[in-house]
Amino acid sequence: MPKFVYGFTEGNRDLKDLLGGKGANLAEMTNLGLPVPPGFTITTEACRHYLTAGAFPSGLEDEIDQHLRDLEHAMGRSLGQSDDPLLVSVRSGAKFSMPGMMETVLNIGLNDESVQGLAKQAGGNDRFAWDSYRRLIQMFGKTVLGIDGEHFEEALDELKAECGAKGDLDLTAADFRTLVGTFKDIVREQTGQEFPSDPREQMRLAVLAVFHSWNAPRAVLYRRQERIPADLGTAVNIVAMVFGNLGMESGTGVAFTRDPGSGQQGVYGDYLQNAQGEDVVAGIRNTMPLQELERIDKASYDELMQIMEKLENHYRDLCDIEFTIERGKLWMLQTRVGKRTAAAAFRIATQLVDQGLINLDEAVTRVSGDQLAQLMFPRFDKATDATLITKGMNASPGAAVGRAVFSSDRAEELAARGEAVILVRRETNPDDLGGMIAARGVLTSRGGKTSHAAVVARGMGKTCVCGAEELEVSTKERRFTAPGGVVVEEGDVISIDGSSGAVYLGEVPVVPSPVVEYFEGEGDLDDELVRAVHRLMVHADASRRLAVRANADNAEDAARARRFGAEGIGLCRTEHMFLGDRRQLVEDLILATGDEEREAALSKLEPLQRADYAEIFEAMDGLPVTIRLIDPPLHEFLPDLTELSVKVALAGDAATAKDRTLLECVKRLHEQNPMLGLRGVRLGLVVPGLFAMQVRAIAEAARARAEAGGDARAEIMIPLVGAVQELELVREEAEGILAEIGVDALIGTMIEVPRAALTAGQIAEAAQFFSFGTNDLTQMTWGFSRDDVEASFFSQYLDLGIFGVSPFESLDRDGVGRLVRIAVEEGRKTRPDLKLGICGEHGGDPESVHFCHEAGLDYVSCSPFRIPVARLEAGRAALTSDGSDTR
Amino acid sequence: MPKFVYGFTEGNRDLKDLLGGKGANLAEMTNLGLPVPPGFTITTEACRHYLTAGAFPSGLEDEIDQHLRDLEHAMGRSLGQSDDPLLVSVRSGAKFSMPGMMETVLNIGLNDESVQGLAKQAGGNDRFAWDSYRRLIQMFGKTVLGIDGEHFEEALDELKAECGAKGDLDLTAADFRTLVGTFKDIVREQTGQEFPSDPREQMRLAVLAVFHSWNAPRAVLYRRQERIPADLGTAVNIVAMVFGNLGMESGTGVAFTRDPGSGQQGVYGDYLQNAQGEDVVAGIRNTMPLQELERIDKASYDELMQIMEKLENHYRDLCDIEFTIERGKLWMLQTRVGKRTAAAAFRIATQLVDQGLINLDEAVTRVSGDQLAQLMFPRFDKATDATLITKGMNASPGAAVGRAVFSSDRAEELAARGEAVILVRRETNPDDLGGMIAARGVLTSRGGKTSHAAVVARGMGKTCVCGAEELEVSTKERRFTAPGGVVVEEGDVISIDGSSGAVYLGEVPVVPSPVVEYFEGEGDLDDELVRAVHRLMVHADASRRLAVRANADNAEDAARARRFGAEGIGLCRTEHMFLGDRRQLVEDLILATGDEEREAALSKLEPLQRADYAEIFEAMDGLPVTIRLIDPPLHEFLPDLTELSVKVALAGDAATAKDRTLLECVKRLHEQNPMLGLRGVRLGLVVPGLFAMQVRAIAEAARARAEAGGDARAEIMIPLVGAVQELELVREEAEGILAEIGVDALIGTMIEVPRAALTAGQIAEAAQFFSFGTNDLTQMTWGFSRDDVEASFFSQYLDLGIFGVSPFESLDRDGVGRLVRIAVEEGRKTRPDLKLGICGEHGGDPESVHFCHEAGLDYVSCSPFRIPVARLEAGRAALTSDGSDTR
Repeated sequence: MPKFVYGFTEGNRDLKDLLGGKGANLAEMTNLGLPVPPGFTITTEACRHYLTAGAFPSGLEDEIDQHLRDLEHAMGRSLGQSDDPLLVSVRSGAKFSMPGMMETVLNIGLNDESVQGLAKQAGGNDRFAWDSYRRLIQMFGKTVLGIDGEHFEEALDELKAECGAKGDLDLTAADFRTLVGTFKDIVREQTGQEFPSDPREQMRLAVLAVFHSWNAPRAVLYRRQERIPADLGTAVNIVAMVFGNLGMESGTGVAFTRDPGSGQQGVYGDYLQNAQGEDVVAGIRNTMPLQELERIDKASYDELMQIMEKLENHYRDLCDIEFTIERGKLWMLQTRVGKRTAAAAFRIATQLVDQGLINLDEAVTRVSGDQLAQLMFPRFDKATDATLITKGMNASPGAAVGRAVFSSDRAEELAARGEAVILVRRETNPDDLGGMIAARGVLTSRGGKTSHAAVVARGMGKTCVCGAEELEVSTKERRFTAPGGVVVEEGDVISIDGSSGAVYLGEVPVVPSPVVEYFEGEGDLDDELVRAVHRLMVHADASRRLAVRANADNAEDAARARRFGAEGIGLCRTEHMFLGDRRQLVEDLILATGDEEREAALSKLEPLQRADYAEIFEAMDGLPVTIRLIDPPLHEFLPDLTELSVKVALAGDAATAKDRTLLECVKRLHEQNPMLGLRGVRLGLVVPGLFAMQVRAIAEAARARAEAGGDARAEIMIPLVGAVQELELVREEAEGILAEIGVDALIGTMIEVPRAALTAGQIAEAAQFFSFGTNDLTQMTWGFSRDDVEASFFSQYLDLGIFGVSPFESLDRDGVGRLVRIAVEEGRKTRPDLKLGICGEHGGDPESVHFCHEAGLDYVSCSPFRIPVARLEAGRAALTSDGSDTR
Repeated sequence: MPKFVYGFTEGNRDLKDLLGGKGANLAEMTNLGLPVPPGFTITTEACRHYLTAGAFPSGLEDEIDQHLRDLEHAMGRSLGQSDDPLLVSVRSGAKFSMPGMMETVLNIGLNDESVQGLAKQAGGNDRFAWDSYRRLIQMFGKTVLGIDGEHFEEALDELKAECGAKGDLDLTAADFRTLVGTFKDIVREQTGQEFPSDPREQMRLAVLAVFHSWNAPRAVLYRRQERIPADLGTAVNIVAMVFGNLGMESGTGVAFTRDPGSGQQGVYGDYLQNAQGEDVVAGIRNTMPLQELERIDKASYDELMQIMEKLENHYRDLCDIEFTIERGKLWMLQTRVGKRTAAAAFRIATQLVDQGLINLDEAVTRVSGDQLAQLMFPRFDKATDATLITKGMNASPGAAVGRAVFSSDRAEELAARGEAVILVRRETNPDDLGGMIAARGVLTSRGGKTSHAAVVARGMGKTCVCGAEELEVSTKERRFTAPGGVVVEEGDVISIDGSSGAVYLGEVPVVPSPVVEYFEGEGDLDDELVRAVHRLMVHADASRRLAVRANADNAEDAARARRFGAEGIGLCRTEHMFLGDRRQLVEDLILATGDEEREAALSKLEPLQRADYAEIFEAMDGLPVTIRLIDPPLHEFLPDLTELSVKVALAGDAATAKDRTLLECVKRLHEQNPMLGLRGVRLGLVVPGLFAMQVRAIAEAARARAEAGGDARAEIMIPLVGAVQELELVREEAEGILAEIGVDALIGTMIEVPRAALTAGQIAEAAQFFSFGTNDLTQMTWGFSRDDVEASFFSQYLDLGIFGVSPFESLDRDGVGRLVRIAVEEGRKTRPDLKLGICGEHGGDPESVHFCHEAGLDYVSCSPFRIPVARLEAGRAALTSDGSDTR
């Protein structure tokens, strides 16, 4: 029979699966000899059993009884003992922290008799005892019996009004005694039953309530969004109560072992005299800095300092703790490895190395790519005197400054004039897409991190603050008002910080990131943060197995990517080279009516392409450059069907012959679903000479570079291949051209159509490398047209918990990832030296980089600015055993 | 060491892999004691070795020598023996017939000496000997030495002109002797080498040429298109020459053991006196019916009759044969199981059962769904006196009558007036799509069965005759001319037969198919064909494991499907019910600006939906009816963006408020790639009440049917699910409604997004059935938008051999099929009683039905007219061991 209950002396921090985070750490502290109130933990296994079978597993009741007896023995008091009662708290504690999701009941053990005993224990403090009792009924009623909390609040408010009391502190013991009666009445009215006076029954019901809370809708939703498995269950901690509200010699506090903002070692925390933990959270009174405890209660303070040092040495990391002092006696109520800012994470990791607590391997795993990315965004100058007018949610990082505008049309209009604008809306919807594209940043007053604005802005990499609820946005009057009567009219300049959620009036100067300056080779190694980043990057680079390349389409991006550490180009998109002043040549190509016209157009494009490639080869000399042949459908280079149709219709007989011809062509090339139409390799096979022109330009540029003493390493990539036959045909033509010009180049393919992954064993026969185009692969595997669905329903999908993160942000392991694994395995089986990389945007996403490491790819490729992130995460992936922990 | 050469006495018909079809059957006949000229076969393995290694495998030359010696011994002559030479033919023979693709060289063994010996053998027939010699040089020069055949043709024509000869028959022995000299000169001029006079060398080079011909471009292309594996190689048959052109006592013929057109037993064939096989093919003289041979050479005729009976009994099927009579001696040159018409296939299969040659199991495997489908198309009345003006290729079956039109616009214009039209084009291109949709049939003068017209017409199920090369089509003058000066102007009525390729002037009456009348329950069982179909269908039904359901959206289709043998509905699309006079209600729903308006629109739709379902449940009483909730994006119910934009722009200030509002809405809902947009389950999750309305209507219709004493078996199908979470949410809502109304229904999902197949193990937790929507699954797995790509590049893809058949016609086993297998396996692992079906159009395609059987599905669902085809193929699949032979 499994063991369902663990005393705190029986567990340890490695048993989080079984005891939850809180229980495991309480046991760890107990075993370290720290002053933890005695108690025990009912396992997650018991919870899972209950949720499946609808009843306690057999033996659980007995185990609880046994541990309760041990607890009573240790405390020298019994649960419900009328003259000297033991009180306990019943607290949930799952493996993963789910703040605010799960239930807690304090003061279990009180009833009409034991309340007297509690008063006696408290030195005759009747008020304290009756206050505790009414708190029990209130919490129990709400949490265990499911009574709407407002009933209790109202009764409390009425009583205060009757007594003329301003706050709880003005109420007397007698008042609370009256309230206990009223609260019991509420329980009877709302449930038809008496409040249970049997402490053992109180405890049993509270345990059940914690079990049930695992499946409360908000918890289910939270888990979906946070991708926490639904079947873990929660543990339940039953702990002897200690009281910080027994007078000025008592109190409660929270603390960090070092500054979670900067990483500085020292004492950081808050303390509140004569209070319980919930009072600190409620913010009823102002806390004092923890340092002041030294003056108030030096013994407890010194003990706390010793404990904190012990914890940090033991956990080898920053810890946060909760403690209570009951009449001069210090009790530890909780500890865990604490959250910290991005800058602190880097500083702390290297400090711990210097202290000899961890080695560099572990230090690299203690920081994350997301943290590094945060450090790379430009920041607002902290020395500014700009007015902070409100804070919203930090939905998409960055710092943006611009004129406030209140409609998408206006945003586009001003942006077209070159103005920087911030689009301000109550909430956005698909109609705002144009405005969001035009704006520097987006600010909304409603919606959370999965709202439309947040999702779309993150997808675009655009700064966004959402859910700034203090703002009153009036689209009609084109203005918003902020607290303190601040009014911002259309055209007024505001600044928004997508990394902190801050909104400022006026223009806040932006300062470049010192970390970016470091990557650019201009960093200040005297700066502690820069030095920490440098040390960890050097070690990550030394540790990683994945190479990191850049997605870059021009020499400038290529050069920056190289400074940022890119080891080549993984994706050079050639179609971007067809825009701008070359659009006319492309139009000529498309409108060509015979071989001669088409060849003439191609022969004009070829020298231009050759020059493009020459520059890129120069910037990436000696490193591989993967060039993707033209991918989009040709109609993307022509005017929009609807706009041109309207133009020609309005012109009537005056429409130009050119426009008419163009319209015919646009109509002919029009596709219902261009993403799944005539593009990529299909175009290469159907338009004679198109791919050949590109291959020739690549080969000639490479040869010219070699003749100039350089080292161009071209890799020619064929997009959208779904069948090996397609690749064979293109490859044959390309090899002929390469041979003719006398240049060597690898020829490979994107794997971006599901069928390519499913038939990778065949395709590898004709491909020297695969590059996973996970953007398109995600689109086709899910059936999502990114342009359409992100704006139209992704925010609702995130809210519904259908996915925890957009599959375009982080690679979907179960679907897309499975295809990647199939292709890797079967491709390598056919061709053991097949080179494997990824060039979708996922190449710069931390979680996805870990996946790529696990899947056995050779490199990831991402945008130049994400290269440091990818380098760091590739190092972390290599250094973590299972490779899956990115947080 | 493997054996590379087999004498005809060593092989048999089961060795087709090794000996090719021709060699295996020659060996089989030899062993049956039939008069086959002696010879031997070089294996496909030798060919494969040669093609890989570039040289004969060691031992092959020795084996050839040994077999040649045996052959010389058997014939009492030696190769190249000057006074009495042995001549041999060298013929290719692959496992699968590749007509016209591979090489043959006759008369090997002739040179300046042995030609004299041949004349002596032929009783002093010098003309025959020299003619044979020049034929050798001509064939050898062209086939083995790669000389352009025109050089020889020109020399022959010049000689005839000099001699004033009208045909070859007017040339004398001396003329041919001159020609031999001229042909040798051509060989010297073109290759710089002498024609090889060593017969052994002639033979060696001819064998090499056959090996090489396996990889000739036309053969490679043919294999790609016919999906014949590229690595099989060809066998080579070396056979002693016999001559049908040694005078009037000699001759050559072809015959069938029964009529391949009707299946009637008897003697069917043609005979040509004093001729070789190639003369019959060339059609130089008219052949005589085989019966006349009885009069000319009764002994040979009687022997042939005995042989034919023996062959049919031995092969237990219709055989076709080639034979030669050399001065009264009958020789069998080839046999194989013969091709036949669809009607003959059914008749022959049942006749062979009646004769006790095969059992019913085998009879079912001898007919195919494609043949059955051919019998179900309406036919032109054979008794018509309509003028056949030409024949093209039978590209897409059916019989179509209409006015000839020469442009897409004109086709659409006349069709809009209710006229039946046939679109006539030289060839079609994507611009003709509208016209092809509007026309009853399509006729082109260029392009083969993979041309644009053929591919698109087959995709539409539209009658098409293509490549009618005798027609001169003038689009400009709007007419075509046919042989014999027939001119068809625009508006003239023509009739085209897509099953035979025939084109008639005027209207040919169409008669219904007796087989369809049978399926409709009105068939004439006295008709032999109908009786044959009936017997085989009954046995197929008794044998199959797959159930067959129908795709039907209304009661009429459901009733027909049931008559045709449907065992339920596998796909009832509800969106078709939203068209017609209900479009306004749907528009109201889409334009609804609040909950109230939306609910009002839904509540108007609900009773209409309920009535739709009630009718279908009645037609399918007692059988399962799978109803798919609404699938397409809402904008499909609104006007087209471009058209409406032009309309509003042209109206200017006079545009109605309604049109303006509508345009706003159309713009808002517009999607770049609607196939991958807001549709299916996504719509159900995002538009409150939409799915609930449909589920309620289904449940209420089912309850009403039960109350009326009927038996409605509803299965609710959720489209476009990609993640189990989507299905869970919809299912929860639907189950609530079903419980409330008190109706039981299965709830399941389409598997049509690749991710659904890849995560089927998870999805099966929430689904009671899967139905593979292989249309969309094919679109997303290949990245093909069917609307776009079939017309724009599929014909080129077929020509390039990228696929042998469109993946929309026949399920792509490697890609889409792999996903289906994954989903079947993992879905059943989660839920062993998971019901599995297919509802894409592949459900009615023979090859795909076999795949579904192999993959272990429970049923296929297809359009009502394809149900008999699916039933037959499901039976065949169950009766063939490997389930993969559909031809």
